[in-house]
Amino acid sequence: MQIGRFQPPSRQIVVYGQPAGTALTQILKDFWATQAVLVTNTSLARPGGLADKVAAELGDACVRRVDGLAANSPRADVVRVADALRSRGIEAVVALGGGSVVETVKAARICLTNNVGDAADLDRLKRSTTAASPRPYLISIPTTLSAAEYTQYAGITDERTGVKDAFHHPDLAADAVILDPEATTATPDALWFSTGLRALDHAVETWCSPVRAPYADATALHAARMLARALSRTKAEPGDLAARLDCQIGAWMSIQGATIGISHGASHGIGHGLSAVTGMSHGITSCIMLPHVLRYNAAVNADRQAVLAEAMGRPGMPLAEVIAALVAEFGLPSRLRDAGVREEQLDAVADAALASPRVKANARPVAGKAEMMGILQAAW
Amino acid sequence: MQIGRFQPPSRQIVVYGQPAGTALTQILKDFWATQAVLVTNTSLARPGGLADKVAAELGDACVRRVDGLAANSPRADVVRVADALRSRGIEAVVALGGGSVVETVKAARICLTNNVGDAADLDRLKRSTTAASPRPYLISIPTTLSAAEYTQYAGITDERTGVKDAFHHPDLAADAVILDPEATTATPDALWFSTGLRALDHAVETWCSPVRAPYADATALHAARMLARALSRTKAEPGDLAARLDCQIGAWMSIQGATIGISHGASHGIGHGLSAVTGMSHGITSCIMLPHVLRYNAAVNADRQAVLAEAMGRPGMPLAEVIAALVAEFGLPSRLRDAGVREEQLDAVADAALASPRVKANARPVAGKAEMMGILQAAW
Repeated sequence: MQIGRFQPPSRQIVVYGQPAGTALTQILKDFWATQAVLVTNTSLARPGGLADKVAAELGDACVRRVDGLAANSPRADVVRVADALRSRGIEAVVALGGGSVVETVKAARICLTNNVGDAADLDRLKRSTTAASPRPYLISIPTTLSAAEYTQYAGITDERTGVKDAFHHPDLAADAVILDPEATTATPDALWFSTGLRALDHAVETWCSPVRAPYADATALHAARMLARALSRTKAEPGDLAARLDCQIGAWMSIQGATIGISHGASHGIGHGLSAVTGMSHGITSCIMLPHVLRYNAAVNADRQAVLAEAMGRPGMPLAEVIAALVAEFGLPSRLRDAGVREEQLDAVADAALASPRVKANARPVAGKAEMMGILQAAW
Repeated sequence: MQIGRFQPPSRQIVVYGQPAGTALTQILKDFWATQAVLVTNTSLARPGGLADKVAAELGDACVRRVDGLAANSPRADVVRVADALRSRGIEAVVALGGGSVVETVKAARICLTNNVGDAADLDRLKRSTTAASPRPYLISIPTTLSAAEYTQYAGITDERTGVKDAFHHPDLAADAVILDPEATTATPDALWFSTGLRALDHAVETWCSPVRAPYADATALHAARMLARALSRTKAEPGDLAARLDCQIGAWMSIQGATIGISHGASHGIGHGLSAVTGMSHGITSCIMLPHVLRYNAAVNADRQAVLAEAMGRPGMPLAEVIAALVAEFGLPSRLRDAGVREEQLDAVADAALASPRVKANARPVAGKAEMMGILQAAW
């Protein structure tokens, strides 16, 4: 198993291969933080669960807990966390869970520095935020492969409309991330593998972006190499902690291109349209759409796709088939109809997707509605 | 050709794929610097050469030039550059040339912040330097593939002993690096390809290190992929600027692991011994020693070597043979005797190599003198 500590572009610290409790204690010491809030979802907060263990490791440093955070990061949760962080003397917040938990906490920290008082007031932050760094220190202990702790934006659901808005700050990523594979063992398989496929989608669409950046290329290619192998190992043996850590490291590497501004492509863009119209999770949109987008793009970047297939251990196989085989291996849906999408919804999905900047950044331009409907029909 | 700007771990800016003059003007503006010293070697300073062009681009901002820097960065040059930088109002220094030029300038900057007055006084800096950041701003325009502009240490020759000492500061890397392939077209072939092999050695020994760090792995593997292909393209067509830039980017990526503390192995360690005893350049030591060290290490890391061979486009070929084939293709020496080493020098080389921390960090331990002599005899 890999052990180490690495200080990357955003000054974000990533600690991997150490027990979360040990790593957390050391990081709080590094940050001179003695009072922390522990934030998590409902399942991890059950008695005797992971949140109790982390709270016990924190001891007196855990001055408050916020449990029961909902999926898709609703504004109400953001305000609830912000209120908890506003207490006197809070120097750090620990986010324990998947993407929804850490996105909520990320947004709560700019609510604090921008004096956002209630859910409606969050509208202000869609336009701009103060230059001041978000506070308090955010330490993330991820339990899925969402990679949300590494990005400078947070997707928060506006309950009034059901729409997810992006909030941005250059320092919004977690100050420290602890990759402890033991913390992921209670994660349901469907969530583990669908977020893993999402991470693979990050890597694939970064490598296949028409914009080249060496650091993005290096990390994306390595992420694809690691994820393809390690996800299969965790399918074969769910208790293989070294393999689970390799998946976490793969997810970390997969998003590095995005953190330096490389845009994802049509799989992400269509996925956002699908999520907005149907409520489908991002992970499942990647399972279904990525192979179709790769087939569509092959006309312009088959050479780059071939490098990925080779790195993933399948030289000579079309990349779309490599991805589709993994989706099948993990028992994830491969057709929109199997994920509850009705055919009459495709029109609205196409409109939403065509408005996405990520579709506009796709390697092969999607000329218009008819072309988009063709991709969606094939995936349906 | 790739165009972009990237801000990595050390906050170092790397600008690639733009003309050096344009990039330089913009960086001086970013640094609010209006007075710079231009430092270079003898060949680039000839009338009408690259130094004249860069000076012309700088215009009034070029307040002073220091030409004629010698190979292997002697202390006398360090002091000469430090004196030039000490002039009132100097805000930036531009290092134009290969590794020797930039190493000299790197060291000169800590002479300034530590009030080093003469060559003997440099001894102080072998032990410690002030915490203050080196100054003034250093902008490097490399003409070889040495990758010296990215590291936090500088190798400086002590003329009294002929020994190269390492000087260290956490911020010693250049503040900005401009990768303009046009600036490399006057570089002699032997220097271009031997520094390229050296960069490949950085990548290979990082990937094959027994210590794993994801960022180091990702960048090293990508560096090997790029260098293997791009070096050959510049051999086939020396004027292929896109290929030359790919070599520069490969060299940049090749050293990233070292910048986060991953130690190189026995090829570097033995190379330092060879340079100390015989004066051989680092690039040539890599050409000769790397295949032998890989054969020696194959007993413990053949699997990792195989991944590199595949990434370099030679799946199934032993990595030592992949490297040896490139050395032959570029017309570089493959035996110590062909590089002027006398057999009776091997004993001293072995002693120097065995003392190297890089030999101690090698994937397969070198048990003692007999084992080291075996490697050297095979290479002789």
